[in-house]
Amino acid sequence: MTGNSSFQEWLKQHSEQFESVLGDILDSAQTIPNRLHEAMRYAAQGGGKRVRPLLVYAAGQLGDAKPEMLDCAAVAIECIHAYSLVHDDLPCMDNDDLRRGRPTVHKAFDEATALLVGDALQTRAFEILALADDSAQLRLQMIAALAAASGSRGMAGGQAIDLDSVGKKLDLADLKHMHALKTGALLSCAVQMGGIAAHLNVSQMDSLRGYSEALGLTFQIVDDVLDATADSQTLGKTAGKDAANDKPTYVTLMGLDYAQKQAQTLQAQAIGHLEGFGSEADPLRELALLVVNRGK
Amino acid sequence: MTGNSSFQEWLKQHSEQFESVLGDILDSAQTIPNRLHEAMRYAAQGGGKRVRPLLVYAAGQLGDAKPEMLDCAAVAIECIHAYSLVHDDLPCMDNDDLRRGRPTVHKAFDEATALLVGDALQTRAFEILALADDSAQLRLQMIAALAAASGSRGMAGGQAIDLDSVGKKLDLADLKHMHALKTGALLSCAVQMGGIAAHLNVSQMDSLRGYSEALGLTFQIVDDVLDATADSQTLGKTAGKDAANDKPTYVTLMGLDYAQKQAQTLQAQAIGHLEGFGSEADPLRELALLVVNRGK
Repeated sequence: MTGNSSFQEWLKQHSEQFESVLGDILDSAQTIPNRLHEAMRYAAQGGGKRVRPLLVYAAGQLGDAKPEMLDCAAVAIECIHAYSLVHDDLPCMDNDDLRRGRPTVHKAFDEATALLVGDALQTRAFEILALADDSAQLRLQMIAALAAASGSRGMAGGQAIDLDSVGKKLDLADLKHMHALKTGALLSCAVQMGGIAAHLNVSQMDSLRGYSEALGLTFQIVDDVLDATADSQTLGKTAGKDAANDKPTYVTLMGLDYAQKQAQTLQAQAIGHLEGFGSEADPLRELALLVVNRGK
Repeated sequence: MTGNSSFQEWLKQHSEQFESVLGDILDSAQTIPNRLHEAMRYAAQGGGKRVRPLLVYAAGQLGDAKPEMLDCAAVAIECIHAYSLVHDDLPCMDNDDLRRGRPTVHKAFDEATALLVGDALQTRAFEILALADDSAQLRLQMIAALAAASGSRGMAGGQAIDLDSVGKKLDLADLKHMHALKTGALLSCAVQMGGIAAHLNVSQMDSLRGYSEALGLTFQIVDDVLDATADSQTLGKTAGKDAANDKPTYVTLMGLDYAQKQAQTLQAQAIGHLEGFGSEADPLRELALLVVNRGK
């Protein structure tokens, strides 16, 4: 089903659109200070599956979203994601040398620059939304959603809980809570931003929330399965780090087989939440399949 | 003139109002994750002269600003300032152990927490503005202004230039450019946000820009003078670091006497830009005097 040719076409078209818009919206490496802007582009343009931008586009086509607003939302949320990766890779956090097969920002540049790159990418995300071409109310809704998903009660809060969890015996509920904040909140926000841009009604937004919560959990379980089973080259980052750091994962808590089955079940649940939509939701359905089948 | 009793009353009233609102708006240390929220409060509530919030209030009284909007703008800009200090103090940047006479956040907590504290304080700043109670257009103007002042073409950009300047022979123009971004942009933004909230017209906003640009430069010259002349206890942070790091300063480029005179001249220029305003601009005038006379 992921071989579906019209979805492959959708994926290609929106991925290309995103990379093009991202390149245009980010300051050029000729903008002063050059090194900082060069490093920001390095951080944001390093590839990856672009799951969050694709979710923005996929949810955005459920209604009458302005294409330019979707572009801005897609770039903004990817800037937040990119900032979190740059800071997460720093020596005082995960101390990773590799990201998507390339040196991490603090390795390619230096630690102080990586710190500023993350800081400035976050700022840029909110600036892009503030300056987008759509109603003021809609832009504010997006800014509030993105801030809630990425701040101390969202992504950054999840990272803080993660820090505290090393070496601790978390149970499954704690682990789910941590990941719901650390990874789930921003994935849900991508879907939510698409829905806001598309002027969806409350019941449609509820369906999207059901979809994205199941998707976020699936995403993290698959992440843990990959960390336990794939090698560093396939992952494009250091594999087996969770086990080495004695971090609790879905695999250590559930076992590998059950974790893989759970991912399948949750993926089906995610798709089930979309039953009120027609074929316009096919990209969201296909993206749920892609998440489970990804090599990351 | 700074002994002016009505200004002292203004200062006391607005400082108390600010601390009270800041305490209310920041998440309590009982909010999960507790340690992160406790550290965010530690970072933001550590005192300081609160120059930026006071500038917001002072500019806000030039027109018909909503008091609650000024409170939100004051807290938002101080969150940005606090985040920049927390990140600036990290080992990979200035590696400072002391800030306002207390251990820096990474000393009182740990480096990873300090990184997340800065990240989450930035996010919170934009969230506060997005959720404030005023017109959508006005809130967006403030968000755009704050993002421009603090991002890669503002404060973070100035820090990147500062990093690159260690050991280099910057001339006075380069030094001014660096500080205009690193410190000046956010001070100007504080005044600008007050003016936006107060619904000032274009010509009034131009006057405020003249005022705040002169003020920002004064502020930095006084900073350099204090770094060269005061001891660590008076400063509440490690003194003489610029000279020790071979960083160019106004004092090393102009000499101490001339730098002190320049600060006086610029302060007078700042006040000159306010001639179109009446006594409602007295707090802005007094704040310009305070900046030059501060023990920081």
